[in-house]
Amino acid sequence: MDKHILLISCVDQLGLISKISSVVSDLGLNIIIMREFVEEETNIFFMRMELSGSLDSESLLANLRSKVPQNAFIEINPKQKKDIVLYATKEYHCLNDLLGKHYFGELPATVKAVIANYEDLKDYTEKFNVPFHYITHEDKSKEQFEKELIDQTKVYNPDLIVLAKFMRILSPEFVSGFSNKIINIHHSFLPAFIGSNPYKKAFERGVKLIGATAHIVNNDLDEGPIITQRVIPVDHTFSTKNMAQAGREVERNVLFEALKLVLEDRVFVSGNKTIIFS
Amino acid sequence: MDKHILLISCVDQLGLISKISSVVSDLGLNIIIMREFVEEETNIFFMRMELSGSLDSESLLANLRSKVPQNAFIEINPKQKKDIVLYATKEYHCLNDLLGKHYFGELPATVKAVIANYEDLKDYTEKFNVPFHYITHEDKSKEQFEKELIDQTKVYNPDLIVLAKFMRILSPEFVSGFSNKIINIHHSFLPAFIGSNPYKKAFERGVKLIGATAHIVNNDLDEGPIITQRVIPVDHTFSTKNMAQAGREVERNVLFEALKLVLEDRVFVSGNKTIIFS
Amino acid sequence: MDKHILLISCVDQLGLISKISSVVSDLGLNIIIMREFVEEETNIFFMRMELSGSLDSESLLANLRSKVPQNAFIEINPKQKKDIVLYATKEYHCLNDLLGKHYFGELPATVKAVIANYEDLKDYTEKFNVPFHYITHEDKSKEQFEKELIDQTKVYNPDLIVLAKFMRILSPEFVSGFSNKIINIHHSFLPAFIGSNPYKKAFERGVKLIGATAHIVNNDLDEGPIITQRVIPVDHTFSTKNMAQAGREVERNVLFEALKLVLEDRVFVSGNKTIIFS
Amino acid sequence: MDKHILLISCVDQLGLISKISSVVSDLGLNIIIMREFVEEETNIFFMRMELSGSLDSESLLANLRSKVPQNAFIEINPKQKKDIVLYATKEYHCLNDLLGKHYFGELPATVKAVIANYEDLKDYTEKFNVPFHYITHEDKSKEQFEKELIDQTKVYNPDLIVLAKFMRILSPEFVSGFSNKIINIHHSFLPAFIGSNPYKKAFERGVKLIGATAHIVNNDLDEGPIITQRVIPVDHTFSTKNMAQAGREVERNVLFEALKLVLEDRVFVSGNKTIIFS
Repeated sequence: MDKHILLISCVDQLGLISKISSVVSDLGLNIIIMREFVEEETNIFFMRMELSGSLDSESLLANLRSKVPQNAFIEINPKQKKDIVLYATKEYHCLNDLLGKHYFGELPATVKAVIANYEDLKDYTEKFNVPFHYITHEDKSKEQFEKELIDQTKVYNPDLIVLAKFMRILSPEFVSGFSNKIINIHHSFLPAFIGSNPYKKAFERGVKLIGATAHIVNNDLDEGPIITQRVIPVDHTFSTKNMAQAGREVERNVLFEALKLVLEDRVFVSGNKTIIFS
Repeated sequence: MDKHILLISCVDQLGLISKISSVVSDLGLNIIIMREFVEEETNIFFMRMELSGSLDSESLLANLRSKVPQNAFIEINPKQKKDIVLYATKEYHCLNDLLGKHYFGELPATVKAVIANYEDLKDYTEKFNVPFHYITHEDKSKEQFEKELIDQTKVYNPDLIVLAKFMRILSPEFVSGFSNKIINIHHSFLPAFIGSNPYKKAFERGVKLIGATAHIVNNDLDEGPIITQRVIPVDHTFSTKNMAQAGREVERNVLFEALKLVLEDRVFVSGNKTIIFS
Repeated sequence: MDKHILLISCVDQLGLISKISSVVSDLGLNIIIMREFVEEETNIFFMRMELSGSLDSESLLANLRSKVPQNAFIEINPKQKKDIVLYATKEYHCLNDLLGKHYFGELPATVKAVIANYEDLKDYTEKFNVPFHYITHEDKSKEQFEKELIDQTKVYNPDLIVLAKFMRILSPEFVSGFSNKIINIHHSFLPAFIGSNPYKKAFERGVKLIGATAHIVNNDLDEGPIITQRVIPVDHTFSTKNMAQAGREVERNVLFEALKLVLEDRVFVSGNKTIIFS
Repeated sequence: MDKHILLISCVDQLGLISKISSVVSDLGLNIIIMREFVEEETNIFFMRMELSGSLDSESLLANLRSKVPQNAFIEINPKQKKDIVLYATKEYHCLNDLLGKHYFGELPATVKAVIANYEDLKDYTEKFNVPFHYITHEDKSKEQFEKELIDQTKVYNPDLIVLAKFMRILSPEFVSGFSNKIINIHHSFLPAFIGSNPYKKAFERGVKLIGATAHIVNNDLDEGPIITQRVIPVDHTFSTKNMAQAGREVERNVLFEALKLVLEDRVFVSGNKTIIFS
């Protein structure tokens, strides 16, 4: 069966669902599932449809354009298997998880390359025939470092950059060059413990839950739109190191879950929030 | 703002969403939120809409009827504050929770009465000015007992009967008289530990999770459509009694959650399954 | 069976467990369960034992004192059914839950009174034959308000004060008068969303989890030792109001869980952390 | 710091903790953490200690033997990095997870070999320099198949066999040859959905939770002592296939968690239950 995905977001207006679903039906397409949401604060309408049937993309787009507000975002069948580049430092646990799942086809994407500012993960990466690029941040300016990152990244023209425990803060200039295309995993349930050493801070605060947050990166560190969060219980017997160990599994799970949602085109961004049609 | 609820289920066909949403739009109604689902095994379409605007129910119903398959189930603005009768035995914990929430308006329903086969919960119930009817099952046939239950229940003509720890098994005859109108809480994560003494069975099996299941009652004991389930961790230190104590809170939470979903008309039943638009 | 509880905390030293358990055994007492922990940062030893057998408290205390470091905290059979005073404002949901459980003996404590700065919860409280004291904060200084609170509270000489949604900030003077005896429920997973309006902040941040934290109150607002935390998932469809509604159930659950742990003498405080032998 | 582990289980008697801890202290060892439990039904005492200090194993064992009941199980410093053999069929997800974690030292064990009744996972396994043995079950009796399994397994003399999605049922003869040394992951929250196709059964029953159970294998299929269980929510939109996909991550997490507990000598078996000092 031919399955198609249709994404729309635009200013809300009366009758949008009717108009859109009529266009779809008139072209003989069947709606398998439809999810929509109007964000009250912004009055923006978001919609995701899965369609079956024989698709004439040009007609669908033209007919939709004639019915929905100008400047509407419309995407028909976004790229199914997106290209991603993974950034890493030394911590292996998210990279390891994603490369393993990628190898067995569980990650609906193509990992084009790993770029890291240390060489620790080279051997592991290359087991999977994924190119590994070592770009150190040492002995160079941040500008120079990021220029090298960008140059190497652009070789692969990725749809997404995934910060799989990349421990360098990216500049606003870098981020704005890949707007809404960078996904990060932060090792706390944001907004608790923003910044570095969240497990140490969690230990010192004596929390009874630790967690992880996958989010889209914008210019404010740890302030980008949150995709997924999860927590696990801890108790007084957990040292900072125990928390970090226990947290590894949560970080993996959360990053994979978030990445899957993005790769399946289920995530819209609105300001610093996400609308997710799971 | 006038908010309306529209529920439809019928055999699926091409263009249903378009037809329904056009009828709605043509009457000047705005779709606040729409959720739909087609169940593959049965080819049945289920839909729940929240609408705003000035409603002419008769026109809406007539126009919908002219567009959707014959025999479609269509409901416009189901009763907002449903009448419920609670059945209980001796265990207080679900009754207590529901009556407390009812008192403060957190339960979107009117508790018309409590019927119990013991008198233990009379004083508590009457604190809330809710009538309490004591109908013992002793010294009478099951038929006679159920006849008395039915007679007393029918006085209140309830939209729902909630078995808030009612420890008697209702006969198929009883159940068929209140089809899809009886909600039960079972103290296990069904289908594990069907029947009596689930915490004892859980203890003996050495499970590491215990839970509760709220479901709609049909003729097969503990086999009705599941609405909500939740579990909590236990360990080797939990006796059967400890499990039952810990389980009380889960049972309360699960029954309340399920009941709210039903009272807000978010639950469709299809065979022994539920479709829930939460 | 006679069951006794023994609590000890002191500077750690070699052989403490051996010394303590020998004292206990030599007096013919059986250890039902023993839990201990040494906090690395402070080198403090914490222990909780449940004992069975015929107890001579004075001998046990004297023998223990002769074996453990000076200034050790030793408590034998702390008061089993503690007296508590509940403070409230207008929000009913935690008060309602605790009074209901108290009525049925599920809360191992005696609720001596409710003190509130509004009268909204008077009728409900009095249903349960619990005295209700209305002390407004209006038209008086904070000092005066707290003096009245303290005077009324001291009438009951409570073991614990439970802030069951008491929406006034208590002064350091007040808090120091009831050191480690005040338990609060905060409607966020601390340290996220410290201070007022956490659900509004959670909504604005676009988090995918909301939660609640029960903690012991010290002089830094929302910074006291955490006892229990729990979260529930939310999504983009949740308004601030929806979050607050969903949060009510978590707040209840968390406060009750924390309170039970304290009432069962399972919670030690060390600095701004808790050691909990659950 | 020298860290030692001491495990004891025996018939309970008065003063055991005192005797054991005195032996330990008298040898100058410090108790870092001690956990114990007496199982009421069997009157068996279980204990796990972590000790620091200079250890004379022979003296410790001799002194303990002189104090605890005859036939006590005593183990001092069980093998720290156990040897394991993984059994697999075609499903990659648990094998993949364990081999990845093993590579980075996150699994405190040595994976000596993978044995599988299909060749699908050969390439992946050999990336990690772990021997892969293909032993088909086809065209031979079950006896013959198991004999080949046993012969190949015994080459590695493993401490544990981990059934990382091994889809053949092992005979009682096989199991009794590796008593309490085989760990399985079952893809349901047992005892729900015992046997084959649990996700299909879960789909048909319409449950709102699916889960996984890691357990020690005994002669009754899916009836062995449970180590770890976890569930995730599902809803009406999940097909059997969706459940199986979502379940993969839970199965991985649960098997890894259980295996870690066993490898760290935190799991005692008593009948068909486990006592776990986590």
